[in-house]
Amino acid sequence: MAEEKALTSRQDDFSAWYNEVVQRAELADYAPVRGCMVIRPWGYAIWENMQRALDDMFKATGHQNAYFPLLIPLSFIEREKEHIKGFAPEVAVVTHAGGKELEEPLVIRPTSETIIYSMFSKWVQSYRDLPLLINQWANVIRWELRTRLFLRTSEFLWQEGHTAHATEAEAEEETLLILGLYRSFMEDWMAMPPLTGRKTDSERFAGALRTYACEALMQDNRALQAGTSHNLGQNFARQFDLRFQTETGMEEYAWNTSWGVSTRLVGGLVMTHGDDAGLVLPPRLAPIQVVIVPIYRTDDERGRVLQKADEVEALLRQSNIRAKVDARDNLKPGSKYYEWERKGVPARIEIGPRDVDRGQAMVVLRTVTGTDLPRKEALPEHGLAETLRARLDAYQAALLAAARERREAHSYRGIRSYGEFRELMEGAGGFVYAGWCGSAACEDRVKDETRATIRVLPSPEFASAEAPAHCLVCGAKSVSEAVWARAY
Amino acid sequence: MAEEKALTSRQDDFSAWYNEVVQRAELADYAPVRGCMVIRPWGYAIWENMQRALDDMFKATGHQNAYFPLLIPLSFIEREKEHIKGFAPEVAVVTHAGGKELEEPLVIRPTSETIIYSMFSKWVQSYRDLPLLINQWANVIRWELRTRLFLRTSEFLWQEGHTAHATEAEAEEETLLILGLYRSFMEDWMAMPPLTGRKTDSERFAGALRTYACEALMQDNRALQAGTSHNLGQNFARQFDLRFQTETGMEEYAWNTSWGVSTRLVGGLVMTHGDDAGLVLPPRLAPIQVVIVPIYRTDDERGRVLQKADEVEALLRQSNIRAKVDARDNLKPGSKYYEWERKGVPARIEIGPRDVDRGQAMVVLRTVTGTDLPRKEALPEHGLAETLRARLDAYQAALLAAARERREAHSYRGIRSYGEFRELMEGAGGFVYAGWCGSAACEDRVKDETRATIRVLPSPEFASAEAPAHCLVCGAKSVSEAVWARAY
Repeated sequence: MAEEKALTSRQDDFSAWYNEVVQRAELADYAPVRGCMVIRPWGYAIWENMQRALDDMFKATGHQNAYFPLLIPLSFIEREKEHIKGFAPEVAVVTHAGGKELEEPLVIRPTSETIIYSMFSKWVQSYRDLPLLINQWANVIRWELRTRLFLRTSEFLWQEGHTAHATEAEAEEETLLILGLYRSFMEDWMAMPPLTGRKTDSERFAGALRTYACEALMQDNRALQAGTSHNLGQNFARQFDLRFQTETGMEEYAWNTSWGVSTRLVGGLVMTHGDDAGLVLPPRLAPIQVVIVPIYRTDDERGRVLQKADEVEALLRQSNIRAKVDARDNLKPGSKYYEWERKGVPARIEIGPRDVDRGQAMVVLRTVTGTDLPRKEALPEHGLAETLRARLDAYQAALLAAARERREAHSYRGIRSYGEFRELMEGAGGFVYAGWCGSAACEDRVKDETRATIRVLPSPEFASAEAPAHCLVCGAKSVSEAVWARAY
Repeated sequence: MAEEKALTSRQDDFSAWYNEVVQRAELADYAPVRGCMVIRPWGYAIWENMQRALDDMFKATGHQNAYFPLLIPLSFIEREKEHIKGFAPEVAVVTHAGGKELEEPLVIRPTSETIIYSMFSKWVQSYRDLPLLINQWANVIRWELRTRLFLRTSEFLWQEGHTAHATEAEAEEETLLILGLYRSFMEDWMAMPPLTGRKTDSERFAGALRTYACEALMQDNRALQAGTSHNLGQNFARQFDLRFQTETGMEEYAWNTSWGVSTRLVGGLVMTHGDDAGLVLPPRLAPIQVVIVPIYRTDDERGRVLQKADEVEALLRQSNIRAKVDARDNLKPGSKYYEWERKGVPARIEIGPRDVDRGQAMVVLRTVTGTDLPRKEALPEHGLAETLRARLDAYQAALLAAARERREAHSYRGIRSYGEFRELMEGAGGFVYAGWCGSAACEDRVKDETRATIRVLPSPEFASAEAPAHCLVCGAKSVSEAVWARAY
């Protein structure tokens, strides 16, 4: 194989770098259908690890998985007025099936509130049937004009939670529970610490009372909406007749929530940690945590080294480290290093004849930028699994610390002049915390002039110590602190 | 809640019994879209257990998961002539998306050979890229006229494996490897022992060279096609230009296989083990293996009994037994027994004040028909997890043995008269092993007259000791033994 071309650097063209990493790390590929992608095994294995972690968290908090139909009658989608307004421009419509034109067109789900709450209304009779806590893992279609692999594709994979509660307070509690769960997942597993908060009305989910979101800051200092949790109030319950008998015998509409994260997270992972050599994966999500590369010249060396490599692999796997020997004969060790670095594997072990003799393994970490971890060290075989486990844990923690530091370094509080804000948005970018008068007019002006939007009204834990007094844009009295950024 | 109506008995109306079990065990419900179903949490949890087991088996044999688009350009589906003939009547077609009519209609995948091999052709260059062993978990749509929950629905969930190989022999080996893997899964996990073999040309997958299948016999003695594995030859490779350079530098088309099992398996599980009280689940797939029902009258008793129930739950979970306390206050123990029996939970533990005093638990198995297991026994708390594990293992084995015995009791070898065969097919049903001349005319005649079809030409391990000499239908020389049955 010819010498591989280096990736475009992030500095030169972040967007080109992103597309190259996604394709050359074999995360995904363009499909022959406009706006759709193929998730390749390496990308899908990362998604599976995300799914497993999230699914465990959902189940630990009492949620159950189910599956609802892909196709939704058009009349269902149209029932909630805001909902249809929000989704109408994006739906894909099935008009023919089984060789005939359908009497009523069917929409491929862009999200499943309508079909799910129509079923809930069959299943819920009494307060005893509540809360009903359901999640589904599914594909959805939203016909997007401009698409990017993982970040915005016409079809994507996601989970969508849908719950029904007896009281407004319980629904709000659930909405915030999930917001916190998403934040924990993004921090603890993805090492991608998001900012959380509430969306303004103009960015609210179509049909929701309140939308909360996790917003992560990418390396180009643009925000990525990485997960949303909606308090739907009784909007859908009213349209789908989702009523229950209360403890005191009254009839009432249930209170709903819905929430989701998608394969977009894989894109977030790339843009949070990747470097000019390719992908950088947090160990907890890496399909392979340690790749073992045997180094040999002669057949005799090959036998000894491969045997040792297999032993080390077995040893590490026993300690639940996802290890893999790369025994391919047609590639030189250097090419293997290059490939696994591009694919973001956190650590590699090089084993040559001398290492076998000495009972050691040469361990090289994918990146040590901003950490005090050694890039390369010879570790004794004895206790290797324990030492590696400690290195991987430290590596995971270092990625999180670095991402958090970067986010904070590009979060600006106390900016009071709109001019200064514009300069920031047109320059380095980042999160700007500032006052907001509550008007959509000011949001619109900022969007028109700077392409920045209010990402969230920050949750208490992100709010500035001193609440801003005046709107960044118009100078009127501020009703809430807001965080602005350009976003994906 | 009013007294529940008993289920229709299998004897009275097997089909009605099936529909009632599926709905009243809360496995699935009808969706408001024609022919589609909602898989409810209890049904989905069974499917998840199936997925996990199969997925582990696929990965252990070197397969990787990926994800390909839901929508396929119509022109792709049309490229393989037999393929489009087979699927054209069943496809759902998207004609509009994003508010516009599409230039080319898109088909919702009824299966993904075409889109997947078009991608393979981008990824495969050399023999070094082979074998390529891919699986995807996905939803598909086939617009069926007559639908049954799980057994035949317009949308279903499945896995579809797609592989590419350098030689015809390797492709055949893969096809048979998967056939064996499916058989093991059905036996070891589902306790549903299938017959395996090759399909005749008239039942072959549209576009395949050879189709192999697992056929299980349901309690009404009709066959259920439960999994298929296809050797596709080079048919799709030719249409999608899937070529590779051989070791000797030649260009050659790759050899493909595809194979799948679906949520239909859940229906097979119901019809293999269920009885007139509802579902019967093999422990290895049961979402809950042991339900613990506390029995008490006074508040004091309630406290003691619930505490013990929680202890037992924790104890069992530590031993990886899926246990759950049913602590609902609004139901009497009897109603709980009834509900969990209907849902097929293999064992329940009743704990009352006297059991707490005696340090014991009353264990009741869901069914002991055809086994020498005790239906009800008081087991000492000491060693409870170990004893229960042994009971569950024996229960799993007993279900398999019973299903195998039933299959063999309704498998007929040595039937030589067509009249006798017709009587069987119109009466008790079952698998009839007999000679076949190889002509489609004889297949057609049997189908017209008895609604039975050749399920498979049996694999060597199922072939009769003495090969039949004459065709069951026309009396000409037999070219192969065949197994006939009426099927779902």
